[in-house]
Amino acid sequence: MPQLTLTALDGFPLVQPGDDLAQLIADRMAAQDITLAEGDILVLAQKIVSKAEGRFRNLSDIAPGAQAKQLADETGKDPRLVQAILDESTEVVRKRKGVLVVRHRLGFVMAQAGIDQSNVEGGDDDRILLLPENPDASAEALRDQLGQKLGIKPGIVIADSFGRPFRNGTTGIAIGAAGIESFVDRRGDTDLFGRTLLVSTIAHADELASAASILMGQADEGRPVVLIRGLPPAQNPLPSSSLIRPLDEDLFR
Amino acid sequence: MPQLTLTALDGFPLVQPGDDLAQLIADRMAAQDITLAEGDILVLAQKIVSKAEGRFRNLSDIAPGAQAKQLADETGKDPRLVQAILDESTEVVRKRKGVLVVRHRLGFVMAQAGIDQSNVEGGDDDRILLLPENPDASAEALRDQLGQKLGIKPGIVIADSFGRPFRNGTTGIAIGAAGIESFVDRRGDTDLFGRTLLVSTIAHADELASAASILMGQADEGRPVVLIRGLPPAQNPLPSSSLIRPLDEDLFR
Repeated sequence: MPQLTLTALDGFPLVQPGDDLAQLIADRMAAQDITLAEGDILVLAQKIVSKAEGRFRNLSDIAPGAQAKQLADETGKDPRLVQAILDESTEVVRKRKGVLVVRHRLGFVMAQAGIDQSNVEGGDDDRILLLPENPDASAEALRDQLGQKLGIKPGIVIADSFGRPFRNGTTGIAIGAAGIESFVDRRGDTDLFGRTLLVSTIAHADELASAASILMGQADEGRPVVLIRGLPPAQNPLPSSSLIRPLDEDLFR
Repeated sequence: MPQLTLTALDGFPLVQPGDDLAQLIADRMAAQDITLAEGDILVLAQKIVSKAEGRFRNLSDIAPGAQAKQLADETGKDPRLVQAILDESTEVVRKRKGVLVVRHRLGFVMAQAGIDQSNVEGGDDDRILLLPENPDASAEALRDQLGQKLGIKPGIVIADSFGRPFRNGTTGIAIGAAGIESFVDRRGDTDLFGRTLLVSTIAHADELASAASILMGQADEGRPVVLIRGLPPAQNPLPSSSLIRPLDEDLFR
């Protein structure tokens, strides 16, 4: 009976800059009597990876330039926040009152360059949190560290929530991954009736991120790590960067 | 310990026009000794719903018009298939060799109006399969029928695979739903630190569809129904149509 189980690690502490995420995860797994199995995948909320990496900026340290001031006017956003968004981006994709969609330097097309103002400790509104420097590398490092601690290397997904152009609401998206087939290409395979599949590429890492997001919730950091069990180990692991559509194939620029 | 389990119903038969999906599901659940629990959600592949509803057309019956012929030239697709796509659509959104993205009459922006040529029985390439006539209504009816047969009304999601503008690969998307909160709006809620959440709308039905898609696979019909267990019953159920972004909020037309 094909089955997947998703288990949120309970009682995960608030993460601070410099924290050892692999150790925190190993501790919580031990506390819940969970032993890693081959094929296990751990999905981490982007926020805790960014925090562990100390990816904070203070708005009060940012001097907005002319472009940021102009965009702040058009969008109604804080010009210092807009400058931080531009610093993380290569292109402004869409703008409108309340909305600033950019191409992040890592290729993600997303609102606000993924910069977070909620759930950032500090007691005031000054601190913002950027995406990790290189989330695929962060995932790979975490996978190695957990392999050393626990004897099995789990698949890793670093998940964020993205809006979509044509649909309301956000879904979980993989911004980093290691040890999993982020992108599955089955073009050329045949169906039950011997006919070649027409649409047969799957964003497996994004589906894993969305699945974990159901348990994580959004309003707090109570469940930032979810264990997904039941899949076979990856045959052709690919990083999450394999999911970035090349610019020359983008019909919606 | 917060946990979700996803279980694929094994040995699901190939669905034929006129089949009673509720009965097929009840039979397979009985065969696997699964009793419905409050909060249970069943995710169905679009294909079996379309087949049960007999949503077939034969290409040989279709006479392409001038617009279809023109678009067939531009995309390299069969003009009769293009005519079928146009018949299901309100607008051509993007086109290019091999690609025809339209706005489906139900509001979905998707390739090929969701029309499927693979996995359609018949022994030749003539038969195509359209989306269900009204997937939210199909989901609601199935929920009622299962409630009558099994004593508990499960949440229902009808899932298809969509491509996305900026990312490679498809993910599971809800084209129909009943008895679940397809769209969750937490705007105005506060985070752990009392700050108002900025991004806090969740496409819950799409995340459920993506989660189930991990188990369904794509190449065959072997696992077209997945049971998701572990969520509380929906407080504010909304159909999947709540996920369609209104045209005047679409920045990517």
